[in-house]
Parts: sequence; structure tokens; C-alpha cells
Amino acid sequence: MRVMNFNAGPATLPLPALERARDEMLDFAGSGMSVMEHSHRGKEYEAVHHEASALLRELLGVPASYDVLFLQGGASMQFAQIPMNFLGQGKVGEYVVNGTWGETAVGEGKVTSALLGGEVHVAATTGTGDGKEKSYVRANKQSELAYAKPDAGKAAYLHFTSNETIHGIQYGAHPEVPLLSAPAGVPLICDMSSDFLWRKVDVSPYAFIYAGAQKNIGPSGVLVVLAQKDYIATGRKDLPKIFQYRTAAENDSLYNTPPTFGIYLVRNVLAWVKEKGGLAAVEAQNLAKAKAIYGAIDGHAGFYRCPVEASSRSVMNVVFRLPTEALEDKFVAEAKKQKMVGIKGHRSVGGIRVSTYNAVPLEWVTALCDFMKQFAKDNG
Amino acid sequence: MRVMNFNAGPATLPLPALERARDEMLDFAGSGMSVMEHSHRGKEYEAVHHEASALLRELLGVPASYDVLFLQGGASMQFAQIPMNFLGQGKVGEYVVNGTWGETAVGEGKVTSALLGGEVHVAATTGTGDGKEKSYVRANKQSELAYAKPDAGKAAYLHFTSNETIHGIQYGAHPEVPLLSAPAGVPLICDMSSDFLWRKVDVSPYAFIYAGAQKNIGPSGVLVVLAQKDYIATGRKDLPKIFQYRTAAENDSLYNTPPTFGIYLVRNVLAWVKEKGGLAAVEAQNLAKAKAIYGAIDGHAGFYRCPVEASSRSVMNVVFRLPTEALEDKFVAEAKKQKMVGIKGHRSVGGIRVSTYNAVPLEWVTALCDFMKQFAKDNG
Repeated sequence: MRVMNFNAGPATLPLPALERARDEMLDFAGSGMSVMEHSHRGKEYEAVHHEASALLRELLGVPASYDVLFLQGGASMQFAQIPMNFLGQGKVGEYVVNGTWGETAVGEGKVTSALLGGEVHVAATTGTGDGKEKSYVRANKQSELAYAKPDAGKAAYLHFTSNETIHGIQYGAHPEVPLLSAPAGVPLICDMSSDFLWRKVDVSPYAFIYAGAQKNIGPSGVLVVLAQKDYIATGRKDLPKIFQYRTAAENDSLYNTPPTFGIYLVRNVLAWVKEKGGLAAVEAQNLAKAKAIYGAIDGHAGFYRCPVEASSRSVMNVVFRLPTEALEDKFVAEAKKQKMVGIKGHRSVGGIRVSTYNAVPLEWVTALCDFMKQFAKDNG
Repeated sequence: MRVMNFNAGPATLPLPALERARDEMLDFAGSGMSVMEHSHRGKEYEAVHHEASALLRELLGVPASYDVLFLQGGASMQFAQIPMNFLGQGKVGEYVVNGTWGETAVGEGKVTSALLGGEVHVAATTGTGDGKEKSYVRANKQSELAYAKPDAGKAAYLHFTSNETIHGIQYGAHPEVPLLSAPAGVPLICDMSSDFLWRKVDVSPYAFIYAGAQKNIGPSGVLVVLAQKDYIATGRKDLPKIFQYRTAAENDSLYNTPPTFGIYLVRNVLAWVKEKGGLAAVEAQNLAKAKAIYGAIDGHAGFYRCPVEASSRSVMNVVFRLPTEALEDKFVAEAKKQKMVGIKGHRSVGGIRVSTYNAVPLEWVTALCDFMKQFAKDNG
């Protein structure tokens, strides 16, 4: 029996996408073998590969001036690969930091620029405290950004994380905290790993968007890039081929063997999104889930407490605390008895985290909210 | 109906490994979710992760002084990551080149060393001709290696490719061409992507072994490293964390989200190898398959021709030519009618290539040999 899986990533996947994978495991499209046993250069796999990128283009309305790339190594590799490609002597990469992933991007960016030239600068952060006490409770306002050079137009890029998975902080989920924009002439880069495809986003302000698949669109081991062709062309040419984005772009992500089965699963998930009614339908459900669960938190404000400021609250990762850690443990244990799993907060921050990615149905959230109400009543 | 799949990689996988994946797709080990929906930090996935590395250690007798790592990006990323870690100012990486993969490793090594210091030197190659006419018909003899510095002990490493997938050239398959060794004090690095686990190999002469999974042990998107802990410790510390091998080693390949489903499939394949009787049984079958197919080639020497010298012939990838390209096309087409697929040679060299990885049963090879005999009779 399937459980209600609120994991933060790898996360639950749409049942139809998994059933399709199961049914085709031994014989894909009548070919007599699994899709993962096909050559990545054969027509059977190539059809899947192209369908996955075509579905992304269709669902998001990605312009022809953008490349869609499938890479490996997750966002963690992008934290290094982006400055490798786009920094260099005299260039400054500007970063906004609103949580652990922004911090890690800056850390790897600093090491990369020390090695290969360039500079990494934090244009804004909402972090307070230090080390283990460091905390984040909101996103930045556009007006808070301050660039290293007075002439902001000289920055090589502005990088931000649209959704901080661990801290439950998101840009663009509430009108008061819109997605960031970059000064004229500065390429905008966004790590959308944990909220990619939560709704339709206009990609045109972005030079480069990247997202690990294991939240909203597939299994771990696949990373999606949407990037302006013109921006990719500006990347350094003195890097190993495997690290130059142009290599993947020029070879349709088939320079080397891609994670074929992972991309096939991405295809299955995207086909499910389309079938479900596209991103408008997905967005409506995501907003309904967020409303329900934040409503349950705020409706028992003496018992549950969301540390994140209301206008920065993530619709993907809902974090909250109970009066004591003992009650949090009890909450997790009792939820598990009711087949609700994956709700323990990240080990670095504790508490509860409920991830409500696209594949989480509203019914699971409703069940969780009912449980929350009962638990507050019994233990409050 | 399953076909006889002789793909060069991604390649056929053992049916029991796929059936297990199919049966557990919606509910892994009674957990109510797929293994790919589990957190990589949860006990369910961690058990799989550790079983995969424990099986590798058991099957190959990997000493405790070695790390077993699961990485992403395939061998193509290792071509850059190895010199990133182990070269630097004043250090020379020595390479032996016996085909396309050795060439690519040298190419990426040169770019990396130009960027980060160090030098890449070709200690030996069997390549003749240039550009598209370049060809390889044998492995190198140990005595042919000539190092950049008279004092070979100064090399940072010696790198070779144990099996050249495209050219069908292998070290260690015949007594006349043993696996290469390195001068005293020089770390030996081997790209075993396409013959890893074809039999039990003594890992102790190697400082670092790497292999893309998509030949003998799993799907694409997973790369296995077996490396001496002491050697990993010598790697550069000024690299981004994601590129330092020590990061994966210190975090048990869980620094960032690994390709969990790929590693799960590796586990399934390794469990199948063990069940089958371990690497001794696998080796016996691989030798029988190679004997049969090279026998069919040599038995019709006027019709089939293997360009590779007998003592360098690969037991994993058997390449051969027919009298004309038209006959080669006909051969591929008629084989397909008999459910034998994946035998077209690599686009860069043409001809026929039959890959007989561990998961290819002897019966498929027997059927292919019967077909070859009949085809030679009908068209010779």
C-alpha cells in the first residue's frame, strides 16, 4: 500500500508516471528491452529524450532562443560549474543568500573564483546569527540588494535560490515578495531546484535556470537547465569540454551518455503534468495545499508556529515547530502510524517540514491537516 | 518479448535485476513508496546504498584501505576530474592510448592541466594514421611505455583504458597482453568502464579504478570508483568540494543527492552476479562467449575479419568486418529479423560490434554464431 509521502527530495512521484515505468520495465514500446537498455544514440531513446525537452518547452513556454539541457551532478555541481563558465579575471558573480543552498552556492563559487579568477560577492542575505545558530526567516526585497561595484552592470551574473528547501522560504509565492530581477545588462541566474514547475514562470528574465529533478519532475541524478543560447555562448572556452555548457548545448545533451532512465522518468512526469491540465492546474492545487496547511498552523497559533514571515512562506516546503522537541517527535511518530511520512525537518534545523510538491495530492494534505488539528487538541 | 540485445552501452541488464525493479516500483520493501521516492538519508535507501558497496567489496575482494564511491557524470567527467585532483604545477600525468576513450582522456587532461597546472604526456599509443583514418588494432606492451621524465617515479600517475569499447581492444583477456603496471611509486589509474567486473581482478596494483555503470553493472548515470584512501588524500584541496574525491569519500557518496535509483539497480545487478556464482562463474561464461564468437569469425576467415590482433581481442566488445559495407548492412538487417539487435559498429569506425557483457547469456551468442555461419554460407 502506498503511503502519504511528504519527503523533501527525492520526493514522491506521480503514481501514473511510476506505473508507466513499471509496465514498460522489461519491454519499452514493443522494443523487447527496457528503455535503460537502449543505446542513447538509438531512435527509441532519442524519442524519449526529445519528448522530455519538448514537454518542458511546451509547459513553460520556453522560447526558441533558450537551450533545454539535461545534465548530471545535481545543483551541487552547478554551484561550481556556473562560476567556472561565467566568472574569470575581473568578473564578479553576485549572490543573494536566503538559506543553506544559497550559502553553499557562495561557498563553491568562492573556491572556484580563487582557482580560476573572478570574485564572488553577496549582494544581499537575510541570514542572522552564525554557524549552527544561523537562521533565515524571509527572502530579500529587491531594494536590499547592494552590488560589489557601484556600476551594477559590471556583474557577471546575479544568482539567487527561488526556494530554500530547508528553511521553507520562497520567492514569488506571495505578491509582497516577487521573484528577483537583475540590473539591466546583468544575466539573472536562478537555482529553482525545489520549486521548478510549481507553476508557469516567465523564463524570459532569466539567462540561466537550473533545477535538480528530484523534487517536482523526476528522480535524483538528472538536472535540468534552461538557458539563453547567447548566454551559454559567453562561457569560458578553456575549460574541459565536459564542463562547458556549450558542449551539452551543441550535442543536445548527448555529448556523453546521459542518465537515460532518469530522463525517461522526467518525460513520464511531464506527460502527467500535461494530462492533468498543465501548470495552471498544478498551480491551483499547490496553492490550495499551501492554504490548507498554513491555515492549520495559524489556526492553532499557540501550538504550531511557522518561523517564516508570511510573505516568504514556501508553497513547496512548509516548515513549523511545536512547543517542544518531544512533541515534535511524538507528532512524527503518530503521523507515521497514519501513513504520513517524510515530515521530519532537516537535521540542520529540526522541527517539522512538510513538502507538498506537485505529485502530492490535496487529499494527503487534507488528511495531514485533520491530523494536525486532532494532535493540537490532544496535546495542546 | 525480450530481444537479444548486444548493445555496447547502455547495455542489456540481467532480467532478474529488472524484474525486481519492476516488482518493487510502487512499493519498495513494504515501505509504501518506490526506492526513488525515498530520502537518500533515510534508512531504507541507505541499506541499498551500503549493500551495493558491500557487494562490490565482496565480489572483487576490495581491501579496507580502498574507498568505494558512487559518482555521477560518467567516465567523461572523470577524464577531467582525475587531472583536477592529481595534477598541478610540476606534475606529469602519463597516459597510454589504445582507442577513442584513451584519446578523450588525454584531450581533457591537456585542457585541465593547461588551466590548473601540470602536464599530460602520452607514454605509449598504438594509434596509427590521423583524424578519421586513425586506427587501433592492439594494446600496448609494457615495454613500449616511455615516460616524459627519465625518472619515471616522478609521474603523478599512469592512466590506461583496460578495454576500448569502440575498437574492441582489451588488456588482460589473453596471457600475451597482461594488464599494465606502473613503475614503483607511480599510482596506477585505470578506466575499466567497459570491462569492470568481467572477472575478478586484483585491485591492489591500482591507486584508482573507475567505471561507468552502463556496461556490466547497471544503468547510465552512475559511476563507480575504487580508490586507495591514501591516494584520495593526496588530491588537491583547493578545488570546489564537489570535485574533490575526498568529499565523496568522507560522506560515503552522500555529500549531495546520489542517483539513488541507479545505485539501487547496481545493487540488483550485483546481487544477481553473486546469486549466479560470483565472478568465477561470470568469467567462465564470458570466456565461452568470446571463444564462440571469435571462433565463428576465424572459422569463416574469408568472409568475416576481426581487425584486432588476436592477443588484444576484447572479450566484451567483438568487432569485425564483412567483405563490403552493403553486406554489413544486410547482416544487421537480417539479424534484427531474428531478434538480434545492437550489433552495428560505432559510427566512427563502422563494421559490426557485438558486445557480450555479463548479462548477455551464452544462448544469445550461440544463436548469433549460428546466424553468422548461415549468413556466410548464403552470402560468401
